[in-house]
Amino acid sequence: MTVMTEADMKAALQRYIDGFKAGDADAIIALFADNATIEDPVGGGKVVEGIAAITDFYRQGVTYVTQMTLSAPIRASHTNAAAMAFDFEMSIEGRTIQTSAIDVMEFNDAGEVERMRAYWGPSDSRVVETS
Amino acid sequence: MTVMTEADMKAALQRYIDGFKAGDADAIIALFADNATIEDPVGGGKVVEGIAAITDFYRQGVTYVTQMTLSAPIRASHTNAAAMAFDFEMSIEGRTIQTSAIDVMEFNDAGEVERMRAYWGPSDSRVVETS
Repeated sequence: MTVMTEADMKAALQRYIDGFKAGDADAIIALFADNATIEDPVGGGKVVEGIAAITDFYRQGVTYVTQMTLSAPIRASHTNAAAMAFDFEMSIEGRTIQTSAIDVMEFNDAGEVERMRAYWGPSDSRVVETS
Repeated sequence: MTVMTEADMKAALQRYIDGFKAGDADAIIALFADNATIEDPVGGGKVVEGIAAITDFYRQGVTYVTQMTLSAPIRASHTNAAAMAFDFEMSIEGRTIQTSAIDVMEFNDAGEVERMRAYWGPSDSRVVETS
């Protein structure tokens, strides 16, 4: 059993941000366990389950996301969870959309993310530009 | 059944911050359901359950917390949850401790917080002053 340190978890979340900034889907996908679940956004009605679906989700995601910036330092916890507030910008069909989110990630004993939940609602998104 | 809007949830989380800033424990306690649970910090080993314990928790809390500041705008979600990143400062036995946290709150149909989880670890706290 590997116990993730707080620094390990924060580094993993930073790699998530850096992966988007670099457009490197594989670096993001590598953070997740085979049986991981992603709820992005929380309450959006669709949970992405398993590494095949996660791979599709992030391969597509990096093609939309043009910017991602931490709003504040990443937080850890007293257990296998960490959280971060960030802003990201997507370019979809000529529209640029900015969204403010908080992601919570839980790690398994192998140091992989097994559950991710992204908190953002319609009121956290705004169209900033239309081409 | 009352459905909380995103604006309602954000206002409730803002009242939590404002309650600490004003040292007004009752304003904070009023946000919670009778059967609410609080895990602060997540993984800390102690879950505060029920309004009596919550009342004690925040009556004591406001005597320690000297500052609380949002790190970024409060996030909502597509369901009954909202989240915020913030910093707070506590003064305990002559020491001033700053902590960076992310709180996630879930609301019941009556518009009360029924579950709060506070993500922060030892690495998110630092002693800034010793008297």
